[in-house]
Amino acid sequence: MVDSAKLAVDIDRLYETIAASAQIGTTATTGLSRAALTDADKQMRDLFVSWCSAAGLSVEIDELGNIFATRAGSEPGLAPVFIGSHLDTQINGGRFDGIAGVLAGLELIRTLNDNQLSTRRSLVLVNWTGEEGSRFKPTMVASGAYVGFFDTQWVKEQIAFDGARFADELKRIGYDGNKPCKAGAIDAYFELHIEQGPLLDAENKQLGIVTGGYVSHRLEVTFKGKTAHPGPTPMDRRSNALAAAARWLTAVDDIGWQFSIGDGKSTASSLNVLPNQPGIISNLAMASADVRHADPAVSLLMKEKMQRAAHASAALSGCEAVVDNHWSWGGDLFDHGLINDLRELADQLGYDWRDIQSQAGHDAYFLASCCPTAMIFTPCKDGVSHNPDEYSSKKDLEPGANLLLHAVLKQANR
Amino acid sequence: MVDSAKLAVDIDRLYETIAASAQIGTTATTGLSRAALTDADKQMRDLFVSWCSAAGLSVEIDELGNIFATRAGSEPGLAPVFIGSHLDTQINGGRFDGIAGVLAGLELIRTLNDNQLSTRRSLVLVNWTGEEGSRFKPTMVASGAYVGFFDTQWVKEQIAFDGARFADELKRIGYDGNKPCKAGAIDAYFELHIEQGPLLDAENKQLGIVTGGYVSHRLEVTFKGKTAHPGPTPMDRRSNALAAAARWLTAVDDIGWQFSIGDGKSTASSLNVLPNQPGIISNLAMASADVRHADPAVSLLMKEKMQRAAHASAALSGCEAVVDNHWSWGGDLFDHGLINDLRELADQLGYDWRDIQSQAGHDAYFLASCCPTAMIFTPCKDGVSHNPDEYSSKKDLEPGANLLLHAVLKQANR
Repeated sequence: MVDSAKLAVDIDRLYETIAASAQIGTTATTGLSRAALTDADKQMRDLFVSWCSAAGLSVEIDELGNIFATRAGSEPGLAPVFIGSHLDTQINGGRFDGIAGVLAGLELIRTLNDNQLSTRRSLVLVNWTGEEGSRFKPTMVASGAYVGFFDTQWVKEQIAFDGARFADELKRIGYDGNKPCKAGAIDAYFELHIEQGPLLDAENKQLGIVTGGYVSHRLEVTFKGKTAHPGPTPMDRRSNALAAAARWLTAVDDIGWQFSIGDGKSTASSLNVLPNQPGIISNLAMASADVRHADPAVSLLMKEKMQRAAHASAALSGCEAVVDNHWSWGGDLFDHGLINDLRELADQLGYDWRDIQSQAGHDAYFLASCCPTAMIFTPCKDGVSHNPDEYSSKKDLEPGANLLLHAVLKQANR
Repeated sequence: MVDSAKLAVDIDRLYETIAASAQIGTTATTGLSRAALTDADKQMRDLFVSWCSAAGLSVEIDELGNIFATRAGSEPGLAPVFIGSHLDTQINGGRFDGIAGVLAGLELIRTLNDNQLSTRRSLVLVNWTGEEGSRFKPTMVASGAYVGFFDTQWVKEQIAFDGARFADELKRIGYDGNKPCKAGAIDAYFELHIEQGPLLDAENKQLGIVTGGYVSHRLEVTFKGKTAHPGPTPMDRRSNALAAAARWLTAVDDIGWQFSIGDGKSTASSLNVLPNQPGIISNLAMASADVRHADPAVSLLMKEKMQRAAHASAALSGCEAVVDNHWSWGGDLFDHGLINDLRELADQLGYDWRDIQSQAGHDAYFLASCCPTAMIFTPCKDGVSHNPDEYSSKKDLEPGANLLLHAVLKQANR
């Protein structure tokens, strides 16, 4: 039997697997456009399933298209260890976000196979449907449904920006499985992900052990004004919903800069306006924005400022602001025991690592609500993601993949 | 023969005609939604043509669907007098904008018929296609083509926001006429229009004689940024095109307020953003805005501020601003001789009138480039237009309609 302390993934094979994924959903740039339930998503899923089968895994699909590939453990009565992430991308996204996590999971199974290592607990490698929310909203919709946060039937009824219905598209690509979308007993969930931020790259750290998520707050606000002719209507008689929304998004951007010294940030995310024509003042503007900060108290303060700015902006423009929806995510999500295990293993493996907070949402956020969960971050060049220039080298990925391997192995033999 | 000094329109008949128009393209409110080349537009055109025929007019349609209804004069060799406006509306517009002008023209012809009055010059009543630009852009597209400002073939190729092609829709509703869209000799053009501003109503003036148009400048600007993940990307590494556009539209709104003491105004008009999703920072935002002022020099200064603000907003957001298009309109457009005639006639008729500047664009702006042109404004309640609450009473419309009658009669007998 192999000396398990020396066990290591085949980084060349992992990188080739990622390169094969990078051929599916290509664009004019180096990026990928592989939104959920498109033809490209189907093609990637088919390839992934073929890889899983070749690795001896038994594949099941649930009713939202989540793919579960199981490597049976020696003690089937024990709750399995899950490893997962997502193979979908933004409309104009990169080659590593999500993909690196799923394929590092596949690589660890291939490594165990190569070394004929079995585990007490079964391993389940998961591809979560539509994490990006780039076609069907919201983000992380299928992992959310899996843990009971979203209603499965509601998810199936969601309509994409292109008019397609979730359930129809799922059926069309042949991934409307029979397995109920519902979490059973799970011993632990691990997710490796590129950092999507600049810290590890800037500090030359080999990996990040994720201690939690930046506390994030998102608001959706509708500004209600009045249509009028843009020519003769004096400024003081206008209720221009677009002007109100522009003022709000500007104020939100200012909030991000105000708190940027403590790494706070804000995003003017989206804006849809009606009638949105030069000849008429718009009476409706639907905007969304978010704020994020590592300190939950500061994040909450930023949210309050963002919310007050909505009403102030509306008032200045003679409009009304209605907060339609608000979400909060992040915080102290992950399992402290697993985090300590990861720290110890990273030391044993001799890696230069740091604790880090996640600033993006991940499927792991939802899994953390139903089982002990941990995340490993790997460096990515300049912190760029959701962009065709997203890039991680073999050197960036290898330490994280090896840590994932050892952490899963340890957990699955408990 | 009737005493022509006592000649007057039948305001009840005009108002009933407007009420009949208000039955076509109705919405849930008191407004109309009768965008160019829709079924509602066709229905209105059919009714208008039937009214013209009943009034003994000969109807011709040109290749852009402009409707010309001619009442032959006694000296066919003389250039005709045109009276026109438009029967289309904004998507959520009112019952009087444009409509009052066309139907006041019809009423003056009915009045001449009732009194068996002929004129030396022929009278041509015109309904211009798609003045509002609410479906096919730009605004005043068919009168613009008529005077050679737009290429007729280019107009036919325009695609509406709903995906329809101008020429296809024109054919579908049966108004793709044979007459070339090209101005011949025109003796004069008159257009009556509701003010679409609050001055006449606030000052209890019975009508306005339009001396020119507020000088207006419109910019279309594309902001170019970079997609990135809204979570981990620090503020100083972002190039959020939506934030840049929001800053610009806010700055434009501020310019309007800054100059509002001299009745200057600005409008944040439209904004379209890509990808416009919560999970990704947007890399493209296409915005339009305009400024208007009665003083051409001040208007130009406002335009310069608006243009500089585009680049400043882009810079603050790490983006680039590209000015795609700019238009200017308004100024000293109208015929001074006709303006003086209108003033004298208004005095003779005993009306309480004032000089006024137009703040909106009108088909008359284009006609002014090919023949002596004049406009008459009638009061509308609170200056509201492009809104379902747009309202003019019989009392508001009668003086303007009578002035139009007498001005046309005078001109057509010259």
